[in-house]
Amino acid sequence: MRSEPAVTGVVTGVVPPVCTPLTDERELDVPSLERLCGFLLDAGVTGLFVGGSTGELAYHPDEVRLRALAVVRGVAAGAVPVLAGAVDLSTDRVIAQARAAEAAGADAVVATVPFYSPTHPAEMLDHFTAVSRALSVPLWAYDIPANVQRKLPAEVTAQLAGSGAIAGLKDSSGDLDALRTVLDLTAAGGARARGFSVLTGSEVMADIALALGADGVVPGLGNVDPHGYVALYEAARRGDTKEAARQQERLRALFALVRVGDPARIGGYASAIGAFKEALARRGVIAHATTPRPMGPLSAAERAEVADHLRTAGLL
Amino acid sequence: MRSEPAVTGVVTGVVPPVCTPLTDERELDVPSLERLCGFLLDAGVTGLFVGGSTGELAYHPDEVRLRALAVVRGVAAGAVPVLAGAVDLSTDRVIAQARAAEAAGADAVVATVPFYSPTHPAEMLDHFTAVSRALSVPLWAYDIPANVQRKLPAEVTAQLAGSGAIAGLKDSSGDLDALRTVLDLTAAGGARARGFSVLTGSEVMADIALALGADGVVPGLGNVDPHGYVALYEAARRGDTKEAARQQERLRALFALVRVGDPARIGGYASAIGAFKEALARRGVIAHATTPRPMGPLSAAERAEVADHLRTAGLL
Amino acid sequence: MRSEPAVTGVVTGVVPPVCTPLTDERELDVPSLERLCGFLLDAGVTGLFVGGSTGELAYHPDEVRLRALAVVRGVAAGAVPVLAGAVDLSTDRVIAQARAAEAAGADAVVATVPFYSPTHPAEMLDHFTAVSRALSVPLWAYDIPANVQRKLPAEVTAQLAGSGAIAGLKDSSGDLDALRTVLDLTAAGGARARGFSVLTGSEVMADIALALGADGVVPGLGNVDPHGYVALYEAARRGDTKEAARQQERLRALFALVRVGDPARIGGYASAIGAFKEALARRGVIAHATTPRPMGPLSAAERAEVADHLRTAGLL
Amino acid sequence: MRSEPAVTGVVTGVVPPVCTPLTDERELDVPSLERLCGFLLDAGVTGLFVGGSTGELAYHPDEVRLRALAVVRGVAAGAVPVLAGAVDLSTDRVIAQARAAEAAGADAVVATVPFYSPTHPAEMLDHFTAVSRALSVPLWAYDIPANVQRKLPAEVTAQLAGSGAIAGLKDSSGDLDALRTVLDLTAAGGARARGFSVLTGSEVMADIALALGADGVVPGLGNVDPHGYVALYEAARRGDTKEAARQQERLRALFALVRVGDPARIGGYASAIGAFKEALARRGVIAHATTPRPMGPLSAAERAEVADHLRTAGLL
Repeated sequence: MRSEPAVTGVVTGVVPPVCTPLTDERELDVPSLERLCGFLLDAGVTGLFVGGSTGELAYHPDEVRLRALAVVRGVAAGAVPVLAGAVDLSTDRVIAQARAAEAAGADAVVATVPFYSPTHPAEMLDHFTAVSRALSVPLWAYDIPANVQRKLPAEVTAQLAGSGAIAGLKDSSGDLDALRTVLDLTAAGGARARGFSVLTGSEVMADIALALGADGVVPGLGNVDPHGYVALYEAARRGDTKEAARQQERLRALFALVRVGDPARIGGYASAIGAFKEALARRGVIAHATTPRPMGPLSAAERAEVADHLRTAGLL
Repeated sequence: MRSEPAVTGVVTGVVPPVCTPLTDERELDVPSLERLCGFLLDAGVTGLFVGGSTGELAYHPDEVRLRALAVVRGVAAGAVPVLAGAVDLSTDRVIAQARAAEAAGADAVVATVPFYSPTHPAEMLDHFTAVSRALSVPLWAYDIPANVQRKLPAEVTAQLAGSGAIAGLKDSSGDLDALRTVLDLTAAGGARARGFSVLTGSEVMADIALALGADGVVPGLGNVDPHGYVALYEAARRGDTKEAARQQERLRALFALVRVGDPARIGGYASAIGAFKEALARRGVIAHATTPRPMGPLSAAERAEVADHLRTAGLL
Repeated sequence: MRSEPAVTGVVTGVVPPVCTPLTDERELDVPSLERLCGFLLDAGVTGLFVGGSTGELAYHPDEVRLRALAVVRGVAAGAVPVLAGAVDLSTDRVIAQARAAEAAGADAVVATVPFYSPTHPAEMLDHFTAVSRALSVPLWAYDIPANVQRKLPAEVTAQLAGSGAIAGLKDSSGDLDALRTVLDLTAAGGARARGFSVLTGSEVMADIALALGADGVVPGLGNVDPHGYVALYEAARRGDTKEAARQQERLRALFALVRVGDPARIGGYASAIGAFKEALARRGVIAHATTPRPMGPLSAAERAEVADHLRTAGLL
Repeated sequence: MRSEPAVTGVVTGVVPPVCTPLTDERELDVPSLERLCGFLLDAGVTGLFVGGSTGELAYHPDEVRLRALAVVRGVAAGAVPVLAGAVDLSTDRVIAQARAAEAAGADAVVATVPFYSPTHPAEMLDHFTAVSRALSVPLWAYDIPANVQRKLPAEVTAQLAGSGAIAGLKDSSGDLDALRTVLDLTAAGGARARGFSVLTGSEVMADIALALGADGVVPGLGNVDPHGYVALYEAARRGDTKEAARQQERLRALFALVRVGDPARIGGYASAIGAFKEALARRGVIAHATTPRPMGPLSAAERAEVADHLRTAGLL
C-alpha cells in the first residue's frame, strides 16, 4: 500500500471487460484480440479491463491470462488505462496473480473477496489491505456476489476507500441500493474527492448507476456494441437522462442475446459468453466464436438467434 | 484418460486431509508437517490427502501447495498413497494444477466441479473427462457443494465412474441420500467391482457412511484424533456397528471444537482450521497454530476452549 | 374476473402499508389505528394498504386482519382507496381471504404467488387468474420474494396485466431491473394505457422507481414519515429529480432505524416493525409500541436509538 | 401447556401423512379418503397424520382441512392416534388452527416455525411455548426447512422437549446429522425417557433414521406402499438392518415416481403429489388423481410412467 492514498485519478467512461478470442483449437487468438481492442478504442472506450468474468477469467491458465494482458496492453499503448483481473481464491494467491499482472504492465489490478471458504467482513478488510500493500499499482475491488457468493459490504468498501487500500470499485452486484450507499459513504469520507472511482458492471441499469453518480460502466455487452455504451455514457454525462434511457432501452433489448442458449443443455455462462463471441464473429471483429472448456457450444439455431438480435439492433 | 479403466485398487480406511502447519511468519513449517504425517501414519491411517479444504487449499500459492505435497510424499515414502487436491476454477486451470501435482509425485489427484461460473451437468461430465485425459495418475472427484456451490449429481458421478474417467469420489456434501445413490449406481454399473472408491468427508456421520458401503473416511478432525477415526473405521469394517457408533459419538462431541470462534469476529473456516491447529499444537504435534491470511486468529479464551475439548476427549 | 379488463384507474402517489397498533395485551388498538390513518391522510397519502408485511399480515388471525381493515376503511371513508392484503399459502386459501376482504369493503385485494411449496410460472399464472375470477374488486399482485421465496417473473406479471387478471403490481422485490422490464412489457402490451398500476415497495430507491415510470410508492417507513414520502413523490412527479433525490437521501438515512435490534437476540422483522412502532409512539401517533408474538421486544437502549434517528431526521 | 410434561407415550411405527383425495370438481372425496385410511390401517400403520405437506396443507381452506381431519378421525376411531397439521404463518394464526384441530378431535397437533418473516431461534422457542400453552392436546414440532425456509435448530428442539412444550418431532429436514443431535440431546436431557417421540419424514433414509434411534417414520410414499414401510419398520425394530436396507432400497427405487412431472411445465410438488394420487388411483384405492389449484396436471405419458414404477415395484 502506498504510504499515502495514491488514487491518482478517477477512471470514467466505458471500460469494457474484454472478451478473450480463441482459435478453433482453443488457443489465444492474438490477431482477433488485437482487432477487438482496436474496435473498442475506435468506438471511444476510455479503458480496457482484461481478465474479468466476461474475459473468461475462470477458464484460462495463468500464462493465457498474462498473454492476453500483454496483447491488450500493446494495443492500448498507454492511450487508455488497462485494468487487469487478479481473481483467485484467497489473499496470498491473489497477491501472486496481482504481482504477475503488475509485472506484465497492468495499470491497476482488480480483485474479489476471498471465495471457496466463507469470509468475515473484518477478514475481507484485511484481505484487500494485504493485497494492496503487496502492489505498486492501484488495487480495485471487484464486487460480484453471483460468482463469489458473498457481497462486499458497502461499509467495508468505504473503509478501504478511506484508507487508500483500494482506488476503485467495479460493482457487478446488481444492487443499486448498496451502490448508492457506497457513493454516499465515500463522498462523506472524502475518498471520492481524492479520486476514488466507482464503475458499474451492469449492462442493463447503467443509465441509473450513472445518474446515481457512478463514474463509468464496465459492460460485457460493450464488446458487442461499444458505440451504444459510449452514446449512453455521453448522454448521461451531459445530463440528458432521456437520451441515456433511450440508449439503455435499446441495449436492454439487445442484452436478451445472452439467453439464447438452452438451459437444459448448457450453463448460463456458456450461453452468454458464446453469444458475445458469436456476435463479435458475425460483426467481423473476431475470427471464431470458440469458447473455452467445459462450456458447451451454442447450436446453429441459437447462433442464428444471435444474428437476429444483432439485426434488430441495427448491428448487422 | 487411460485407454482402459485404470482403477488399480480401492482406497479404504482413514485418509486424513492433512493440515498445513505454518511458522509464526506464515511460512510452511516443514518439520511440523513431517511430525504431523508421522503422527498420522503411526495412528494407522491408510492414505494422506494433501491440498484439501482442511489443508487450506484456497489459501496457499502454487509453490506452497507443491512443497507441502513433496514433504508429505517424502514421509509417506510409498507406504500409503498420497492424494493431492488440484482445485481451481475450471478445466484448463485444473489441468495445470493436476499436472503439477502429478509431476510432484501425487498418486492420485482430486478435483471439484468448475466453480465461479454456473456449470451444467453435461459440462461437468466434459470437465472431469478432459482433466482425466490430461493425466497419467487416477483422478478423483471432490464433491463439496458448500465451497463450490454446486453438487456433483450422483448420476454424473456414476457416469464418470463407468467410463473410467474418475477412480474415486471424496464426498464432502453431507448428503447421505445422494451418497447412497452413488453407491447403488456404481455397484449396478460395475464400477465398484472394478475398484471405484468412495470416501466420505464427514467427521460426524462417518459410521453411517461406512454402514452404507463407503470404503473409508477423509475427516479433517482426523488430524487431531487419528486414533479415534481408525478405531471407528475398524469397528465398522468388522461389522460392530455399536462400537462404531460409540466412537462416532465421542468424535461428534469433540467436533464441537470447530465452533469455538466467535462468528461476530471471524469466519467459520478461521474458527475450524484455527481449532484444528490449536489442538495439534496443544498435543505437541505441530509447533504453531498459525493460520493463513486473511483468517482472523482465535482469542486466548477460544484457544483455552479448544484445550477443554481435548481434555474432555481424553486427548490432553 | 371481469369479462373485460376492469382496470378502472391508475393508483398513484404514496400508499403506506399501514402498521397495526396493539395494546399492551396485544389486542388491536383501534383508537391508535384511527389516529395513524388520520395522520397519514393529513400528510397527503393517496391510498392505504392494510394487511401488508409492515401491517404484520403473518402475525394476526383472520378476525384481527378484518377488524383492522374495517377500521381503516372507516377512516378512509371513500376519500382514498383501501387495498387489502389477502396473503395465504395457495389459491383456494387466498380466495377465501380475498373474498372476506372484499366483503369487508376492500377496494382492491393484493395477493402473492403461492408459497410453502415451489410453484412453476405457469402455475403462478393459473393462480392469479383463478383468484381474480373469484372476485368483483380488482386483484393486485404482491411481488415479495424475500418473504415468499419466489420472484413473480416480469413476463408472468405482464401476461396477467394483459389479460386483465391483475390491475396492479406492488413490487417489493427490490429488483429495479425486473421492475423496468414490467414497465416496458406492460407499456408495450397496452395494459399501462388501460390503467395498470405499478407501485414500488422500496423505501430506499423510491425516487429511482418513480423516475423509471412507477406510479407510486408503498413504503413501510411512510408510517413514520409520510410527509417525507409525499414530498419525494411530488418532486418526482414534477420532474425535479434533484429534489426527489434529496428527499430520498434523507429517508435513506432515517431508514437505518430498522436495524436497531440486535440480530443476536431478535429477528429482522421484530427489529423493523418494533422500530416503526416505537417511532410512531414517540411521535405521539399511537399509544404503544407493542409487537405481536413471537417477535422479541426492542431493548430500552434500542428504543432510545430509534428516538435518536427521529431527532436527526427532525421528526421529534 | 400442561402443568407437568404431559408426554403420554411414544408414537412409534409408520404414520403416513395422509393424501387428500379430491373429486374431479376438486371437492373433498370423502369415500376415497375413507378407503385410503382403511387401506393404510389394514397395512398396519400405527398412526395417521392429516394436514401434512403430502396432505396438501398449503392448498385447502380451513373447512376442507377440518373435514378431512373429521373423516380420518372417524376411520381411525381411536384405534390409532391422529396427528393434525396446524401450519400457518405465525404464533396466533397457528393457535387458531391448532385449537380448531383440537376441537375436531386431533390427538396431537403439529406446527412449524413461523414463516413468511425471518424468526430468531429465541423467537422460535417462544412460538412453540405459546402454542403449547394454548392447547390441551400435545404439540409436535414439524421441522421442514425446504418449505418454511428455516431449520428448527436441534438445540431449540431439545429445549422445547425438555420443558414439555413439545411432545414430539416430525423431522422432514433430511438432515440426519441434526436428527442425531436431537436424539442425543433429548436422551441426555431426559425427555426421551419421558416419552418424547422422534419421527422421520424421510422416504429414502428411513432405515438409517430408525437405526440412529428414531421411533418411526412419516413417509408420503407410505400412502402408495404402506406395506413396504411397515415391513421396513418391523425389520429395523427387530434389529435386522440388512432386511431393513433391502426394503429401503426397494422403496428408494419406487420413490423415483415423484419426478415423473416435466419441470419445464409443472412444479415439483405438482409432480410428487400428482404421482402419489395417480398411483393410489391405479391401485384402486382412490377414485381420482385430481390435484388442487394451481398444481398443473401430469400428462398421459407421465401418468403411464407412474404405472410403470408401480409394476416394477410389484404393486400393480
